[in-house]
Amino acid sequence: MGAARFLRGLLPLIDPRRLTVIVNTTDDETFFGLHVSPDLDTVTYTLAGVAERTRGWGIQGDTFRCLEALGRYYGETWFQLGDRDLATHVFRSDALRHGLSLTRVTRDISRAFGIECSILPMSDDPVRTRIRVRGAGTLDFQEYLVHRRGRGVVESIRLAGIGTARPAPGVLAALRRSDAIILPPSNPFVSLLPILRIAGVREAIRASGAPVAAISPLIGGAPVKGPLDRMLSGTGHDVSSAAVAGFYKGVASSFFIDRNDAAEAASIAALGMRPVIIDTLMKSPARARKLARAVLSELGI
Amino acid sequence: MGAARFLRGLLPLIDPRRLTVIVNTTDDETFFGLHVSPDLDTVTYTLAGVAERTRGWGIQGDTFRCLEALGRYYGETWFQLGDRDLATHVFRSDALRHGLSLTRVTRDISRAFGIECSILPMSDDPVRTRIRVRGAGTLDFQEYLVHRRGRGVVESIRLAGIGTARPAPGVLAALRRSDAIILPPSNPFVSLLPILRIAGVREAIRASGAPVAAISPLIGGAPVKGPLDRMLSGTGHDVSSAAVAGFYKGVASSFFIDRNDAAEAASIAALGMRPVIIDTLMKSPARARKLARAVLSELGI
Repeated sequence: MGAARFLRGLLPLIDPRRLTVIVNTTDDETFFGLHVSPDLDTVTYTLAGVAERTRGWGIQGDTFRCLEALGRYYGETWFQLGDRDLATHVFRSDALRHGLSLTRVTRDISRAFGIECSILPMSDDPVRTRIRVRGAGTLDFQEYLVHRRGRGVVESIRLAGIGTARPAPGVLAALRRSDAIILPPSNPFVSLLPILRIAGVREAIRASGAPVAAISPLIGGAPVKGPLDRMLSGTGHDVSSAAVAGFYKGVASSFFIDRNDAAEAASIAALGMRPVIIDTLMKSPARARKLARAVLSELGI
Repeated sequence: MGAARFLRGLLPLIDPRRLTVIVNTTDDETFFGLHVSPDLDTVTYTLAGVAERTRGWGIQGDTFRCLEALGRYYGETWFQLGDRDLATHVFRSDALRHGLSLTRVTRDISRAFGIECSILPMSDDPVRTRIRVRGAGTLDFQEYLVHRRGRGVVESIRLAGIGTARPAPGVLAALRRSDAIILPPSNPFVSLLPILRIAGVREAIRASGAPVAAISPLIGGAPVKGPLDRMLSGTGHDVSSAAVAGFYKGVASSFFIDRNDAAEAASIAALGMRPVIIDTLMKSPARARKLARAVLSELGI
């Protein structure tokens, strides 16, 4: 997850109490009757310093005893949930069933880890990514990404519930009062565009008057990881940083691209964004910090 | 749990397909939003051969990673749930929320373990043991037994919901068609009397015409483990096998007591039961088997 790597680079550079992370919830899913919020958890575990870094999800050093035992009852356990990670889902599910909002539960979880930043789900209302894959029908996002490993030709990407989802409490206020906004190097379809499509979000960003920096998730015209290339081509877009930048037109004031994609700078400038050419591959914490420093500098922080 | 030890002794002696185990559910409890059925699980794990034997609950060799992590969210984790054990509670809770009955879930769990006996909860309706303890108010059973370690003077024991609880499907039929019935050496208040108080159970036992053997859970006038002595004295009874036998009057035809309690034989005979004097301490699997063999022999099996 590029956003998590970027966040890890950003953290040493700023006062955490000044940071609000607004998180996509469209890949939330129910497994074994438990509400799993993969992006919220990745952000939380990253900010808590307990995230597993290589595979990009879950908790470092976690074990999978419960999951193994769940296999006995459910047959399939393709979505990997570690023993410690499970505690988060058990707690969240319990709290949601008691009527607490996802926002409140997210805050309780982050406080339990002593996190000083504010982590907000984009919405307390359910919005779910549905991917239509040629020959496989319409799939839930985790089914598509994890179970089928993102294979197949994407025919369409839909956000079920996006039309009626309200921003979570605090989201619009955080955006409006922000000094700077960062769209990290993530898959636009399944992490940034859902947030930008929540009613009031674009207006709040505009109202803030804050500079907005986006970072391309593509390097040399390809995603570092994940199915973004198939999602772009499947929905009729070029597989290019300029195509990603197109999604943020009217939102981002600067757009960071990798040196390998320097040729796209003119197309990005044509979208009304200042192109910034830099090494975007965060292959080490130092490199992530360097990228984050450049982004902060671009934003005047 | 005396019943589990006895069951382990009984298993090698009979065709498991002939055995139905009817299990108390009054110590069921919700922890972390998960439905935990301690007695059903102990029976299931015992019959599956995976039960932890020394401490008397949970799964052999289980780890407690998830529970540790739950502590971060919930603060207290006095009820110990192992990682593998948790899978049972996650599955059961998920299935119950989908509208399946406890009977059905119990069958699914036992089938997942390849168990050939039939395990039935006494009822699909909630019945809960409430213990009033001097100076501590009315406590849920696990709160009393596990959190407070059974300390304090018992003032009363109540079964909330017993008046309206229906027998689980299959319970009355299994009793009616049984060739023999065994009341294992358990705490009568919190395992056998709840079952006997379910509407229709005593009548079904009588209708079966089967011999009924009960085994005293007291040895030398004291429980092997647990708070039965305090429960007996707190509810105005002697702490004696004869007092326990009194609860089964009109139900049991034979009553097994330990050699140390041989003096009680006459009182037991006066209750209309044949007293059988034997070593009842199951300090090894061989001793449990020996006791079970004596019980089967008394029952003509």
